[in-house]
Amino acid sequence: MKDLHTNTFRVTTEVQLKNLSTQLDLGISEEKKAKKLEKIRKDLGKLQDTMYAHNKYSVLICLQGMDTAGKDSLIRELFKDFNPRGVVVHSFKTPNSTELEHDYLWRHYIALPERGKFAVFNRTHYENVLVTRVHPEYILNENLPNIKQVEDLTPEFWQQRMKEIINFEKHLVNNGTIVVKFFLNLSKEEQKDRLLRRLEKEKHNWKFSPGDLKERDRWDDYQQYYEEAINATSTPKAPWYIIPADNKETARLLVAQTLWDLLSQYTDIKEPELDADIKENIAFYREKLKSE
Amino acid sequence: MKDLHTNTFRVTTEVQLKNLSTQLDLGISEEKKAKKLEKIRKDLGKLQDTMYAHNKYSVLICLQGMDTAGKDSLIRELFKDFNPRGVVVHSFKTPNSTELEHDYLWRHYIALPERGKFAVFNRTHYENVLVTRVHPEYILNENLPNIKQVEDLTPEFWQQRMKEIINFEKHLVNNGTIVVKFFLNLSKEEQKDRLLRRLEKEKHNWKFSPGDLKERDRWDDYQQYYEEAINATSTPKAPWYIIPADNKETARLLVAQTLWDLLSQYTDIKEPELDADIKENIAFYREKLKSE
Repeated sequence: MKDLHTNTFRVTTEVQLKNLSTQLDLGISEEKKAKKLEKIRKDLGKLQDTMYAHNKYSVLICLQGMDTAGKDSLIRELFKDFNPRGVVVHSFKTPNSTELEHDYLWRHYIALPERGKFAVFNRTHYENVLVTRVHPEYILNENLPNIKQVEDLTPEFWQQRMKEIINFEKHLVNNGTIVVKFFLNLSKEEQKDRLLRRLEKEKHNWKFSPGDLKERDRWDDYQQYYEEAINATSTPKAPWYIIPADNKETARLLVAQTLWDLLSQYTDIKEPELDADIKENIAFYREKLKSE
Repeated sequence: MKDLHTNTFRVTTEVQLKNLSTQLDLGISEEKKAKKLEKIRKDLGKLQDTMYAHNKYSVLICLQGMDTAGKDSLIRELFKDFNPRGVVVHSFKTPNSTELEHDYLWRHYIALPERGKFAVFNRTHYENVLVTRVHPEYILNENLPNIKQVEDLTPEFWQQRMKEIINFEKHLVNNGTIVVKFFLNLSKEEQKDRLLRRLEKEKHNWKFSPGDLKERDRWDDYQQYYEEAINATSTPKAPWYIIPADNKETARLLVAQTLWDLLSQYTDIKEPELDADIKENIAFYREKLKSE
């Protein structure tokens, strides 16, 4: 395999999704991919242990992608060698009534990772500039001042949300959270195959909902809004990475490698020193125990 | 290895901790232990996936044990093959000011697992009849009516707490939570060795706190209160298991096997059926996709 330059996937200039491939041939066998993933997974697990002891940084991984893009299985495979103490996964669905009583970032805010830990947002605060643009009537449930009808949702309204999101993430980064955002870039054709598989395998039937097909009908709208959101909010502090996702194993490896490349730059993450006064007395404590 | 009868560890009659061994020779190599653990871990992971789809039961695993009993590493090793979506670990430390503004079960209540998921309590609501008995002055922080001084803490006070805990767990079980409680039974001698190791390996120094030695001085009190709490609260609905914990690998395997034996009795856990009206139309949805 050629060396992966994970920065290739980082959004640093305006992108057009239609120009980005949903496939990438890594030129290695499936077995090799699995081995590489396992290695990175273990390294990430060790890093997380150290991060827990260090207790200064936290990591927020944001996962977005169309239905069947592979978000769930990516999470399952990526964190296999993590101490479950160190990672919390939040799957955000339609906001419930309590959540709607607060501003749209509130439910994400209260789910942020503690210091020393990872949080994965499976679907994220970005749904507020994605699904709500495809279905603007959803915004009315938020009971916002000055928004009485869908027609009140001006382009400025959406631009303001994007800015709010940028500021939210900037604040997190300033205060010790490492924010990484992945868009799993799936082709419409591959989604078709994956939905068909859900319908064909009886064991997987329960995952199917007729709503999946309705959302698929809006594919082009979603692509457009994804493109706008990613371009508006990929900042140096909280970058987006667009990952070719037609092959699940490849996507997992690319996400893992990207994460590793990013986190291993934080060379200050290490076990903390004991307080000086305790350290001075270690010999004493040892003697006390030994002479019991 | 002889067949493990995990019911051996279940507390069904009054126990005396001093009569229970902290060691158990399984008669198999470390390698074999690791293999067996891996197999159960994978089975548990699969069961959890199904449980997630089924969405009726949740599992609450309560872990108690003296300092260094191996709770953290047990969690790390036991859930390696879990989808991190399916398990949340809560480590309960000294209650903070918000928590103290509520009854002592509140912080545990809000941490309970969602349907289809596991929660692990690393230290649990039982600390309210353990550490607070060794240090009854802590109870004064709860600002309880009629408790003005340590002398107000009558035997009836503690008996009432035990009953409240039994009722709390009974309620959970009645509503679909499977409650399993493990006491990692460590010898005082093995704790000494483990504390010495923390003091000797510089990389592990940060885990040491002089408070560890102070609590160790109260070893016998802790043993007494553990014994009382376990005897008072081991119910058929929410049993305690006392696990010999002087060997970490053995303890992990025993906990895993116990958990598996218990959970695999829930033979009704399976993938849900699709709603009839969706199921009827599967052929239609398939056609719709294929003919796009």
